[in-house]
Amino acid sequence: MEILKEISKLLSGVREKKPLIHNITNYVTVNDCANIILALGGSPVMADDIDEVEEMTSIASSLVINIGTLNSRTIEPMIRAGKKANEAGIPVIFDPVGIGATTLRTKTAERLINEVKFSVIRGNMSEIKILAGIDARIKGVDSTEGTHGGEEIALSLAMRLGSVIAITGAKDIISDGKRLCTIENGHKMLSMVTGTGCMSTCLIGTYSGVTNDYYLSAAAGILTMGLAGEKAYKSLRKGEGTGTFRMRLFDSIYNLSEGDIMEGGRVYEKQD
Amino acid sequence: MEILKEISKLLSGVREKKPLIHNITNYVTVNDCANIILALGGSPVMADDIDEVEEMTSIASSLVINIGTLNSRTIEPMIRAGKKANEAGIPVIFDPVGIGATTLRTKTAERLINEVKFSVIRGNMSEIKILAGIDARIKGVDSTEGTHGGEEIALSLAMRLGSVIAITGAKDIISDGKRLCTIENGHKMLSMVTGTGCMSTCLIGTYSGVTNDYYLSAAAGILTMGLAGEKAYKSLRKGEGTGTFRMRLFDSIYNLSEGDIMEGGRVYEKQD
Amino acid sequence: MEILKEISKLLSGVREKKPLIHNITNYVTVNDCANIILALGGSPVMADDIDEVEEMTSIASSLVINIGTLNSRTIEPMIRAGKKANEAGIPVIFDPVGIGATTLRTKTAERLINEVKFSVIRGNMSEIKILAGIDARIKGVDSTEGTHGGEEIALSLAMRLGSVIAITGAKDIISDGKRLCTIENGHKMLSMVTGTGCMSTCLIGTYSGVTNDYYLSAAAGILTMGLAGEKAYKSLRKGEGTGTFRMRLFDSIYNLSEGDIMEGGRVYEKQD
Repeated sequence: MEILKEISKLLSGVREKKPLIHNITNYVTVNDCANIILALGGSPVMADDIDEVEEMTSIASSLVINIGTLNSRTIEPMIRAGKKANEAGIPVIFDPVGIGATTLRTKTAERLINEVKFSVIRGNMSEIKILAGIDARIKGVDSTEGTHGGEEIALSLAMRLGSVIAITGAKDIISDGKRLCTIENGHKMLSMVTGTGCMSTCLIGTYSGVTNDYYLSAAAGILTMGLAGEKAYKSLRKGEGTGTFRMRLFDSIYNLSEGDIMEGGRVYEKQD
Repeated sequence: MEILKEISKLLSGVREKKPLIHNITNYVTVNDCANIILALGGSPVMADDIDEVEEMTSIASSLVINIGTLNSRTIEPMIRAGKKANEAGIPVIFDPVGIGATTLRTKTAERLINEVKFSVIRGNMSEIKILAGIDARIKGVDSTEGTHGGEEIALSLAMRLGSVIAITGAKDIISDGKRLCTIENGHKMLSMVTGTGCMSTCLIGTYSGVTNDYYLSAAAGILTMGLAGEKAYKSLRKGEGTGTFRMRLFDSIYNLSEGDIMEGGRVYEKQD
Repeated sequence: MEILKEISKLLSGVREKKPLIHNITNYVTVNDCANIILALGGSPVMADDIDEVEEMTSIASSLVINIGTLNSRTIEPMIRAGKKANEAGIPVIFDPVGIGATTLRTKTAERLINEVKFSVIRGNMSEIKILAGIDARIKGVDSTEGTHGGEEIALSLAMRLGSVIAITGAKDIISDGKRLCTIENGHKMLSMVTGTGCMSTCLIGTYSGVTNDYYLSAAAGILTMGLAGEKAYKSLRKGEGTGTFRMRLFDSIYNLSEGDIMEGGRVYEKQD
């Protein structure tokens, strides 16, 4: 598949250029986010104070905004960093964690989308449906919605917002409003480790630091996590579980090769 | 033992119902807390902003409050979420980390206890003694007190506060003011990994999401961590230490079976 | 080597006395910091609220200040805790993470150095050069400077500030303004795991809790991380990477023996 070759090139690009990725994120999964960026070959930096976010963003190759533990202190920094990135032509990736679970999250996500132009928005089906204004439910930060209708939602929301939309779940769906692909890699154990969604968003952010094609970097990030999940699961022996699985995600991404992508990638592009 | 059968049923209950557990907790062990809830079968959510805690609590099956890195921004949210849970009949679990080490912690714990009705309070011997108003010392967040006299303290404090009191240490003690049991599972290496206390509290919170008998859910949470510690320790090979041990805790809880509880549980209920 | 014997004694000292180490640190690597202190044999406590830092510092054996995710809420607590430690004769260790990346970090580091007397300052070459007022660049929190000229910089900055200066990188350099040593342990994979710098600073803090010779405790902390990195790397099998490596750091430090230090330590003291 042509797209797998393109993704393989992005992987080499990350390892050569070691892009600096600025994260304004939650305190639950932040350590995993930093380590997953490092495992792929990027250089993470976390900074969220209003007095430094713009300066930090302006030296970065991409900016990742994640509202997983949203608080009033960091909303303004998110907006400022996002605007700065927009001015400077630096891609901004958005993870609307738990949108719909509370009014604060929904309103903040809406404000962010109104004030910042995002290159990619990644969420689970509940999050993306709620973002699209479709009636949907969410259980804390976990999706309760199936993927039915996801392709149409991704396509139309991407067109409306001018952002790549990436929906992750049993089947992943990515669209930039024109192109659309589905990814069938991954393993259900990924949903039993906290932060695999946040980490996928960080992988997208890292790939976005070395290309201008954010449809491709979104697919690359999600495929990378899917392949890592498969390899981590296969490595498990009797008595091992989510603890070992989680560690192996980092091992797998650290060792990810172009061959793994070419042989293991199950990315299906829709033909018009 | 009858209680082991009851605990086994709670385990099945968690895996069937996947209760949503809302945590207002510290930034040191928060990732481990989320992963331990997931490993048991629950669904964790962390939210601490004053503008969303009540909404988040009202959709949860239980609320866990932990003052491990207490700060002025999150005290009020703890109180509000706790009151909301009380109104809605959602159990609230309290971990008074480091009470007695500073005036702020002691006063905040007292305020919480005055304003919120807790279903379970879990701490080490120093923490529970200080909470009970007994002269005791604490070294940061580590206990310096033996378990001597613990049964009487747990019993009388539980009666006074109307909360289940769970004291963890070499021997664990749980009482609801009428019933009392001790648990002799666990391993001393648990004290060489940060957050095993916080994680025990989260396990109690998760079990509390599927029962109204909080004496039972407290025993279940503490037994689960004890069994995990034993299994994790037994798995260690030459050269392995606290890093591998910590990872195996998650593996063990993910793989915990009713058989493990029935065969390995050493829970002793006191007869009147 | 004489210094290895001294470092071995410090290791025994930590395991006997279990010093309490108070950390005001970042939310990215805080869990690793706590676990590395425990693995060595110390007792960590994290507290950053202005209403409790002085009280917490006064019961600690050392204080570690780290500006990795600096925010306006915690600058004042850092200063207050530092001053309290100075008054009480408790050593204070400083990790100027990302100084030079933003004005906020640079100005805060300068303010801290003006108001608090540090026993040890540890950073990478970029950070220490910027601290010394030498023209240098930094990429987020990663050094972009080689170790050339490092010995002179460490020596003169140590003399000027009256603090031990520890520069970590491919070759580590430690000086108190009179004595100087280099350490050639470690492995480059340490730079692909977040927080290995922060953890080194915490190890220095832990050793500083049991001696008054902070040149020695700085060398001990850095040597400990270097030896752990070597052992962790050697343990890796096919398919393993930074995930397993990170876990093995804790295993290695938990199992660190005086023999490991005596046989593996490559610490070179400069003769005048």
